[in-house]
Amino acid sequence: MIATGFTGGWLDRADAVRGDMQALAAALADPRARLMRLTGGDPAIDADGAIAWTSIAEAEGTPIFLGLDDQRRPHFAESRAGDAAGPARSGALMRMLDALPPGDAAIFGTVRSITGWHARSGYCANCGSATAIIKGGWARGCPNCGAEHFPRVDPVVIMLAECGGRALVGRQAAFPPGRYSALAGFVEPGESMEEAVAREVFEEAGVRVSDVRYLASQPWPFPGQLMLAAIATAESNALTIDTKEIEDAFWVTRDEVRAALAGAEDARFLPPPPYAIARTLLEEWTAT
Amino acid sequence: MIATGFTGGWLDRADAVRGDMQALAAALADPRARLMRLTGGDPAIDADGAIAWTSIAEAEGTPIFLGLDDQRRPHFAESRAGDAAGPARSGALMRMLDALPPGDAAIFGTVRSITGWHARSGYCANCGSATAIIKGGWARGCPNCGAEHFPRVDPVVIMLAECGGRALVGRQAAFPPGRYSALAGFVEPGESMEEAVAREVFEEAGVRVSDVRYLASQPWPFPGQLMLAAIATAESNALTIDTKEIEDAFWVTRDEVRAALAGAEDARFLPPPPYAIARTLLEEWTAT
Repeated sequence: MIATGFTGGWLDRADAVRGDMQALAAALADPRARLMRLTGGDPAIDADGAIAWTSIAEAEGTPIFLGLDDQRRPHFAESRAGDAAGPARSGALMRMLDALPPGDAAIFGTVRSITGWHARSGYCANCGSATAIIKGGWARGCPNCGAEHFPRVDPVVIMLAECGGRALVGRQAAFPPGRYSALAGFVEPGESMEEAVAREVFEEAGVRVSDVRYLASQPWPFPGQLMLAAIATAESNALTIDTKEIEDAFWVTRDEVRAALAGAEDARFLPPPPYAIARTLLEEWTAT
Repeated sequence: MIATGFTGGWLDRADAVRGDMQALAAALADPRARLMRLTGGDPAIDADGAIAWTSIAEAEGTPIFLGLDDQRRPHFAESRAGDAAGPARSGALMRMLDALPPGDAAIFGTVRSITGWHARSGYCANCGSATAIIKGGWARGCPNCGAEHFPRVDPVVIMLAECGGRALVGRQAAFPPGRYSALAGFVEPGESMEEAVAREVFEEAGVRVSDVRYLASQPWPFPGQLMLAAIATAESNALTIDTKEIEDAFWVTRDEVRAALAGAEDARFLPPPPYAIARTLLEEWTAT
């Protein structure tokens, strides 16, 4: 299988512990238990660029139970109270992500998604009452109507349309200068992954595609998506760009993508960062 | 591509109309505009077993804009006020689904997902205030904090582990008697589709899998999932069933699956219904 960013976490999620009050209390009381703390959504990093874990004794609130390592040590995480991060990545975080070991990035991504969801989800969507953390941080419960709410994972399709040996890349206005990437969009209620790919490519670029082939997936923690990467066949290379969605798009050859991935000075565009599945998609496409 | 249940809707979602107040008003005022009404979560059906559309003049509240057909006729839907359906399917609905044309089932699925989400999401998760329908029914806006909330689509993995020519099927206690299906579970924050498949098969059946191969997807409107179907290779056939998750599981041969799909009297199990991707997964597996 294709390795993607934010995967390969080294904790057993041990989900049976989450709903077991006694097991959870024992994990919290374990003197070996470790804590990841986020500040402004970013983790603390040690001298080697890995996550700097601290003792569970440092916890201020109700930490989230992350799981057990291969020595059965419990791991937890928390965000400082009132210290919510937006969906954007700080410059410091982007530099951290370039260096974080992949397994550490996966665990950080889980923590960033869940803590961000808690920060945005303090009230019951069903009745408006204040909710409380339950199940070791993996849900919120409403004391008024009894509803249980689980962290959102929003499926997003991200895809290359290909036509005559070229692939379609585009850029959003918010991207760094020169960056182009695969087109992407949220899967809507009532459509399959394959239908979402076709709808998004048509909406953003006016291109009809068929034969959608799934390639790989990754979790994306800004704020909490499941990215589903695919390659699809375009019927034509004529573009009608919806500038409300994307700023620009063009067709690139495999050689142009290779130059971009290699960081060539005369490359036609700057590619996405290594931890983004859009880059994996471009790498895999050049290999086909 | 593999055809799956609840796909193939025949409306252009025309998403640009949703956010354009003038275009939306024009669509609502179009005398040709049609309305799907749900009662208890179920659609009205005509004598041929297809969706019975009525005139937009019948709308009571703020209907959801579904899109345009090939004659550019606007289509809308609404649920009667205070008439929310639970995630369960009524017996009448299950009989309807056996007969609904696939494109109609896809549009009904979209409506069922969105109306159910509105019924459960009248308050802002961020601040607790009452929210209002915006964007033609495709979002809710909070007048207090300004948050916009979009319908949830929860990704779910559904998979066959295979070992020595046999595939693993299981049953939940709530299934009809004799029914066995593919194992399934929600994708959690911070994991890929492939990681979710491996975690769920291990949690539910104690089986380690690798080489997860994506097969197909479908939307599932009870209440609003994106089902991602896969086949994976099991390391061994020893089972440790978590009876809190599933009631039973066993390994079946391709011949046993073929007999079940054919409805043979002596079949070892009853298969899932035709509109469920679990059945597609079993059909595809027998063809490999």
